[in-house]
Amino acid sequence: FQEPSSSFSSSSPFSSLSVDTQNLRKQIDELSTFSDAPAPSVTRILYTDKDVLARRYIKNLMGLAGLSVREDAVGNIFGRWDGNEPELSAVATGSHIDAIPYSGKYDGVVGVLGAIEAINVLKRSGFKPKRSLEIILFTSEEPTRFGISCLGSRLLAGSEALAEALKTTVDAQNISFFEAAKSAGYAKDHDDLSIVFLKEGSYSAFVELHIEQGPILEEEGISIGIVTAIAAPASIKVDFEGDGGHAGAVLMPSRNDAGLAAAELALAVEKHVLDSGSIDTVGTVGILELHPGAINSIPSKSHLEIDTRDIDQERRNDVIEKIFQSAEMIASKRGVRLSEFRIINQDPPALSHKLVIDAMQSAAKELNLTHKSMISRAYHDSLFMARVSPMGMLFIPCYKGYSHKPEEYASIKDIANGVKVLALTLAKLSSF
Amino acid sequence: FQEPSSSFSSSSPFSSLSVDTQNLRKQIDELSTFSDAPAPSVTRILYTDKDVLARRYIKNLMGLAGLSVREDAVGNIFGRWDGNEPELSAVATGSHIDAIPYSGKYDGVVGVLGAIEAINVLKRSGFKPKRSLEIILFTSEEPTRFGISCLGSRLLAGSEALAEALKTTVDAQNISFFEAAKSAGYAKDHDDLSIVFLKEGSYSAFVELHIEQGPILEEEGISIGIVTAIAAPASIKVDFEGDGGHAGAVLMPSRNDAGLAAAELALAVEKHVLDSGSIDTVGTVGILELHPGAINSIPSKSHLEIDTRDIDQERRNDVIEKIFQSAEMIASKRGVRLSEFRIINQDPPALSHKLVIDAMQSAAKELNLTHKSMISRAYHDSLFMARVSPMGMLFIPCYKGYSHKPEEYASIKDIANGVKVLALTLAKLSSF
Ligand SMILES: [Mn+2]
Ligand SMILES: [Mn+2]
Ligand SMILES: [Mn+2]
Ligand SMILES: [Mn+2]
Repeated sequence: FQEPSSSFSSSSPFSSLSVDTQNLRKQIDELSTFSDAPAPSVTRILYTDKDVLARRYIKNLMGLAGLSVREDAVGNIFGRWDGNEPELSAVATGSHIDAIPYSGKYDGVVGVLGAIEAINVLKRSGFKPKRSLEIILFTSEEPTRFGISCLGSRLLAGSEALAEALKTTVDAQNISFFEAAKSAGYAKDHDDLSIVFLKEGSYSAFVELHIEQGPILEEEGISIGIVTAIAAPASIKVDFEGDGGHAGAVLMPSRNDAGLAAAELALAVEKHVLDSGSIDTVGTVGILELHPGAINSIPSKSHLEIDTRDIDQERRNDVIEKIFQSAEMIASKRGVRLSEFRIINQDPPALSHKLVIDAMQSAAKELNLTHKSMISRAYHDSLFMARVSPMGMLFIPCYKGYSHKPEEYASIKDIANGVKVLALTLAKLSSF
Repeated sequence: FQEPSSSFSSSSPFSSLSVDTQNLRKQIDELSTFSDAPAPSVTRILYTDKDVLARRYIKNLMGLAGLSVREDAVGNIFGRWDGNEPELSAVATGSHIDAIPYSGKYDGVVGVLGAIEAINVLKRSGFKPKRSLEIILFTSEEPTRFGISCLGSRLLAGSEALAEALKTTVDAQNISFFEAAKSAGYAKDHDDLSIVFLKEGSYSAFVELHIEQGPILEEEGISIGIVTAIAAPASIKVDFEGDGGHAGAVLMPSRNDAGLAAAELALAVEKHVLDSGSIDTVGTVGILELHPGAINSIPSKSHLEIDTRDIDQERRNDVIEKIFQSAEMIASKRGVRLSEFRIINQDPPALSHKLVIDAMQSAAKELNLTHKSMISRAYHDSLFMARVSPMGMLFIPCYKGYSHKPEEYASIKDIANGVKVLALTLAKLSSF
């Protein structure tokens, strides 16, 4: 891998890349208003009215940037700038705009609005790409509605299992995936979602710009994180069932309380994660629901959703095994039934590609921005794009590492730095 | 207190009390169809459309029984059979028809439909009451919608605190109590709910027929429970708050997980209840909610609702104090904020009145039905009626003691026995 010296001479147009920070800030604020929660919270769930409005906003910006826009059957949106050699596989960038309930306005958004601005930056600089450049807005990176994370990118990466599963997937209101997709204007003609799969060699490289969602860059005062690997996430759904009954009338020895079983398992998840002894192992019970959910009813059912991650797949799988053993032990001890213990996904970690890492590093260096190599502990659409394309990610600092809550924040200066590095990285990658 | 021998000679009309079991069974089944959950579950929440339809059904039956029907400002419904001496204070009976989510069709209902049938039984027997007899359908015995149990009977008993609190009470959808009441046709003219308070001496006695909601009568093969005391309930709302954050990006040592604090407190409730060493102490976490409630978000808020009861008020209050200490300790240990620990109600226990106990016992004896004295571990509107009237309760067996779930069941034979004892008890009480 050798840089063609011509494009990156000291007289290159890229020495004067300029980001329209005012406009970019305005776009981030405007996009955040398409939300089902009051500001500063953002809630934007797949295929809801607010999601549809936000998608329209992005397609409009793509059009204004001179990109040709298309959408696939699940609503992955593609904005393409044809290169001088459009027959070559393209260089892609992108992220997501869906937002979990009561979260913030930067997660994902920075990598979509930032990508559009990166294209604008390159256009203003007079650059003409050799390979085409393409922005992808991925459908449902967040698992909120259908319990499936990175729905769009998993399908793009060719997941037959997911294409099959979606035929019978419903949300919490029992609305099917296809019904929801159709209500948003997608999945109109086909029940076969394999049409979404990318053709082999569609992209020569993929790079995603994202807030760090961790505290390291801010604490160390570094502008750019060069992601070399993405931690391996797994998610598990657990149901306990007991006899329930009246909170006054059923005496303690006669109870088999499904809620207390759930409480014990939540604490067991924490214990097994801490017992791993590694700072890189995390585990979370983000959902814990009781049925019937009345103050004077002993819970007859409980439902937990557990998220566990590690950069070491084997260590993470050990934790999952221990959680399962605890669930069985708790059920047996409390006389409740472990009616479900289902591993929803158990993805392997992904490594960034040297081609992309090198391009990101030289871009940061040329722009005189401090940078360091790091691991992504959150997963991203990049985890799945890595299956079908050389992949890399760029991180920018965010306030205290906060994410998935309203306090999430990245300064416009840090965002602009990320956009510049992304623009230059895309330019470099398009030249090979 | 001396029985007037005239009314209860062996030639009394009551020796042939006959219950129309077929009709009563039909009514129980019909009433259960006014539900927001599919059968066999029943969900009937205060002031919803289904509640309004069920109320209409009851008022119609009261009218068919020849009772004069009136309603008060919160929807307590009164059906009156004027006695020969209508200036005397009346004898009352009644229960509730609201049903917590996914519960059964007998809790409360047996004491309302059974009371109407008891009146019909007395009318068919040719009986004419001296004191007027009155059936009361109490509004919102269950705390489901506004978090307040025995709303109707507390007001009837003259709770100034509740009349005041209801001015600002809202449900989970932020609908005010008055807005909800108006939508059901109540609270039209007044904001001052003290108009609901009963005048002193309105009733000379109150008796409630109810399923046991415990296993004792069924296990021991006894037809009738004579309730001598109602256990003292207390309910508590607890909120924890932490920083939340991304389930992948925030490492374990940086977390303050409000959900795990809730899980620990739920287990602490169980521990303190068991530590009391008494079989009569119970405690339940029936509600445990996490915010934002997404699999990839660390819970930033948690909300618990705790119910604890005992026949010994001091022992129950000791448990509450220990739960509070645990909540503070857990909050401090986990670095979360205990933003609320509110004791919603902490009612004293109630004792049945000798007048009513004696009438119930002689009625059961005269009808040749096995009976035993017992404690009510569930609370009832009787707990509050006891504040303004001599009170007693009749229990009938129910399947395995199940209640507050769809498996709740009482045989029509056991219900008919209860109705007969209730009819004869009312007749006796009306004669004094
Ligand atoms: Mn996210
Ligand atoms: Mn994201
Ligand atoms: Mn009940
Ligand atoms: Mn009841």
